[in-house]
Amino acid sequence: MNLILLDPSEVGPDGLVTLRDARAEHLRRVLMVAPGDEVRVGLLDGGTGAGAVASIADEGVALRCRFEGGRPPRPRVDLFLALPRPKVMRRLWAQLAALGVGQVILTNAERVERDYFGSHLLTPEVYRPLLVEGLQQARDTRVPVVSIHRRFKVLVEDDLEQLFPEGTRVVGHPGCEVPVGSVAADAAGRVLLAVGPEGGWNDFELRLLEAHGFRAVGMGPRTLRTDTACIALLSLVHAALR
Amino acid sequence: MNLILLDPSEVGPDGLVTLRDARAEHLRRVLMVAPGDEVRVGLLDGGTGAGAVASIADEGVALRCRFEGGRPPRPRVDLFLALPRPKVMRRLWAQLAALGVGQVILTNAERVERDYFGSHLLTPEVYRPLLVEGLQQARDTRVPVVSIHRRFKVLVEDDLEQLFPEGTRVVGHPGCEVPVGSVAADAAGRVLLAVGPEGGWNDFELRLLEAHGFRAVGMGPRTLRTDTACIALLSLVHAALR
Repeated sequence: MNLILLDPSEVGPDGLVTLRDARAEHLRRVLMVAPGDEVRVGLLDGGTGAGAVASIADEGVALRCRFEGGRPPRPRVDLFLALPRPKVMRRLWAQLAALGVGQVILTNAERVERDYFGSHLLTPEVYRPLLVEGLQQARDTRVPVVSIHRRFKVLVEDDLEQLFPEGTRVVGHPGCEVPVGSVAADAAGRVLLAVGPEGGWNDFELRLLEAHGFRAVGMGPRTLRTDTACIALLSLVHAALR
Repeated sequence: MNLILLDPSEVGPDGLVTLRDARAEHLRRVLMVAPGDEVRVGLLDGGTGAGAVASIADEGVALRCRFEGGRPPRPRVDLFLALPRPKVMRRLWAQLAALGVGQVILTNAERVERDYFGSHLLTPEVYRPLLVEGLQQARDTRVPVVSIHRRFKVLVEDDLEQLFPEGTRVVGHPGCEVPVGSVAADAAGRVLLAVGPEGGWNDFELRLLEAHGFRAVGMGPRTLRTDTACIALLSLVHAALR
C-alpha cells in the first residue's frame, strides 16, 4: 500500500478522515505511524496529497488530509479481454489496476466457458476492492472502468465504437511477427489491446476483430497463460507509449 | 499444456512411453486424443518432436515418440531475485519458466523475511514441477537452473562472477528514468536482471550491485508488486533482445 486511497464520502469538510479497516491496520502495523507523521493519500478518481496522523486509537486512525492538484491522467491503454477462468481473473484485477488501464472490457468468446459469467468476481462489490488494491500499490487514483459483454459479435459490431471511439486497436496473436511495441510506439492517442481466451480466438472472432480495425501483434514464439500475457503485453504497450 | 514434456528416463529405446499422471489426463480429457493422433512432445533439457498415440487404456496412455534436432537455445535472460514471500514465489515459478529464463538466482536482502528461506517452495521437489508446468505452457524444454543464496554480500562479491561471468547486468529501480528496454537492446550477450524485495533494496545493497556492474533501469512511475514487476521486466528485456 504505497498510497492510502479514500472515498470522497469518507472525508469531512475539514479534511479529517477516520480509518477503521485494513488501511488503519496498515498504518499501525506496517508503516507504524505516530501522531504528526505524514502519509501519502489519494481520493478515488481524484487528486493526491498528504495525510497527517491526527490520532491513533483502538477505534481507528484519524488523518487530516490536504489534496493538491487534480486527478492524474487516465492510463492510455484499454484492455479488451476474453473472460478468463475465475481463479485467473481474481489474480488479474489488482495487477491490471497496478499496471494501469483506462477501462477493462470483458467479453465472451467461443472458447470462454459459459459459467465463468456467473462468477461473483464480476460483481463490483468483489472486483472494485481488488482494483483499489492495485491502485494503492501503484499510487494511482483512477479506477478502471469495467464493462461486461456476453455477446462478442454485438460488442464488436455495435458497442465498441462507443466504448473506444478513437485510437489504435491491436489484438495479441501467438506467433504473429509484428511486435506489439512497434505498433504502440506509432499510436498518437489511446491503445486498445485485445487478449484472447486460453485456447485463442477462433477464426470468426479474429476476422471480426481485424475487420473492426484490430491489428494482429505478437510477442515472440512462447505461448503464455492469459494472466502472464496480459501483464506482458500491457507492459510492452506502456513502455512503447512512454 | 502445449507440449508434453518427458524425462529421458521415461522413454524406452523404441521411443515408447506410457503416461499415467496429469499428462495422461490432459491427453484424454482436454486433447481427447484417439489412437494414431500425434501430439507435440519434448525431452526435458532436450529436443522436441511428435508422439503418436499408440494406445489408451485405464492404466495409461502410450505414445511412440520421435525427436528431431537438439535442445532449444537457452533463454538469454537470467533473473536475480530477492526472495519474495511464499505465496508470490509459488505463483512465479511457472510464469518465469513460461516467459523464459536461463537461471533463477534467489537471494536474501535486508527486506526479505528470514523465514521465507524455510519455505518448502525452495525444494526442487516442489519447484521443479512448477517450472515444468511453465515450460509445457510455453513449449520449451530447458529447465531454468535455480540457485539459492542466503548471504547477499557473499553472493554478489564472490559467487556472481561464476554464476554470470559475462553479459549485461541491470537492476530494476522504481523511479529510475533509464528504460530497461534501451539497455537490453544494446546487450550483445546475456542479460542478468535484478528485481528487489517488496520494500526495495536498501542503500548498501543497491550500491554493492552498482559496484558490481548492475546498471539501474526503470519501467515508469508505477510501483509494482514483485511478481508483476518480474513479468513486466522480463517481457521488456525479451522484447528488446528480439
